[in-house]
Amino acid sequence: MNKQLQSFIEENVPKIDAEMHRLIQLENPTTNLKESMLYSVDAGGKRIRPLLVLAVLEDFMKTSEDALKVACAVELIHTYSLIHDDLPCMDDDDYRRGKLTNHKVFGDATAVLAGDALQTLAFTILASLEEVDAKKAIQLVGLLAEASGAKGMVGGQVLDMEGEKSTLTLDQLEEVHLHKTGALLSFCIEAGAILADASEEETAALRQYSKNIGLAFQIKDDILDVTSTTEQLGKPANSDMASEKSTYPSLLGLDGAKQQLQKYHENALESLSFLKRESSLLKLFADYIVQRNI
Amino acid sequence: MNKQLQSFIEENVPKIDAEMHRLIQLENPTTNLKESMLYSVDAGGKRIRPLLVLAVLEDFMKTSEDALKVACAVELIHTYSLIHDDLPCMDDDDYRRGKLTNHKVFGDATAVLAGDALQTLAFTILASLEEVDAKKAIQLVGLLAEASGAKGMVGGQVLDMEGEKSTLTLDQLEEVHLHKTGALLSFCIEAGAILADASEEETAALRQYSKNIGLAFQIKDDILDVTSTTEQLGKPANSDMASEKSTYPSLLGLDGAKQQLQKYHENALESLSFLKRESSLLKLFADYIVQRNI
Repeated sequence: MNKQLQSFIEENVPKIDAEMHRLIQLENPTTNLKESMLYSVDAGGKRIRPLLVLAVLEDFMKTSEDALKVACAVELIHTYSLIHDDLPCMDDDDYRRGKLTNHKVFGDATAVLAGDALQTLAFTILASLEEVDAKKAIQLVGLLAEASGAKGMVGGQVLDMEGEKSTLTLDQLEEVHLHKTGALLSFCIEAGAILADASEEETAALRQYSKNIGLAFQIKDDILDVTSTTEQLGKPANSDMASEKSTYPSLLGLDGAKQQLQKYHENALESLSFLKRESSLLKLFADYIVQRNI
Repeated sequence: MNKQLQSFIEENVPKIDAEMHRLIQLENPTTNLKESMLYSVDAGGKRIRPLLVLAVLEDFMKTSEDALKVACAVELIHTYSLIHDDLPCMDDDDYRRGKLTNHKVFGDATAVLAGDALQTLAFTILASLEEVDAKKAIQLVGLLAEASGAKGMVGGQVLDMEGEKSTLTLDQLEEVHLHKTGALLSFCIEAGAILADASEEETAALRQYSKNIGLAFQIKDDILDVTSTTEQLGKPANSDMASEKSTYPSLLGLDGAKQQLQKYHENALESLSFLKRESSLLKLFADYIVQRNI
């Protein structure tokens, strides 16, 4: 991994982890609920979403007292979605990131409620920002809600479930991913743009960037599912093929998927051309998404 | 039922129902998700929460373009909680309001996601208010999130689940209900106070009112569970006794529970004494909560 990116990640991931932990403690939930919420939040992860929020600010050479909180809010939404996704009635996964899934440890009922409470907490956090004015705060609430709900992530999960019953076209597959993972990634970039006081044109360019890295992220996930071992992934490899799910490799072949990945990568970099910064973190993130092994 | 209250309800429930339906359509979710969301929203209900928001404004002789939306937001939170509550891993209920529960019609996975999306939609709605300024809007977001999450409703559900394993004291039972149902009812009253520009003192008095009607509401529910038939309730009667759950009647006896109900009722009315309005809708609501048969 690029050294500049690595040091950015190593500097910020511990801050993100600690802040999420602190924000849950602040909620002062009952013991069981707290343990269940903390279990999934503390299970780690790449933290790509919160890092992207912070990376936008870095690329704009801006700082914001609220950026870490906004970054945590979106990661809590992501975490809640994983808890619900893993439930027996959904993907029925026993392991996530090499650890037992939430419901395997706390039971299905508590897992449902911990997910629910993590979603709510994300909005509590956005309602308690200190630096941004109320107008920006309410804009962030609206954007996060749109990215997470029926129009965004949850809508994408339903599309994904429905898609499992049939072979999708490439357009349909893209539609699934633009909702399921793309919407939340786009929120990260747009939230960063808001906190960095980006112009309209800059924000539009960043939207192109986030759309392309979102799709790149998903293709890379699909490719890794085919080319990695269960041990490397921390979850069962080849699970897509086993479930006969439509993926980029199944529709385009492995080489075709790799070419498509390349295309999204190039588009992402192109949309960053407006940035004045010599060494852009967003560029490094796009590179990382394409080159990562897990 | 009192005629003034009845005409208030008959005038407003159709507006609430239509607005919730419209707000879900606006989200433009995929067919399955939309049908699942609409199924539970359109299943009806007493709509006490949204009616309370509107009743505060009436009692303050104020109007607000945004009141109906805020009222719908809280009812969507309530609806999502019912969908998740009914899941097999939670209360495992097949019927709600005389109709099959959401997961019995759409399957558990879609029911989980429909609940998730309804929660998100509540925040989308608060982020798109038109009349109130952003400062009030963000205050409403913070209050609704606090009332719904680990500190409020969801926390209460976990307390309730944990309480099922043991006999609770009266204080513990009150704690459960103050979270599980009380927090959301209090939000309704406080949201109404914000939209009506109530003073600090008025808001404090209204908080006392909402705490007392919240507890009265729950005792009445417990009493009805003992004294009604399954047909009257639209859900299994005597279910609390069957599950050996701690309730007001089980802790205080039926007569003791009725006396406690009376006490909360009187406290609620007392806290309304500041109102100038001769015939207060909030008073009529308190009467209704105590006297209702379903």
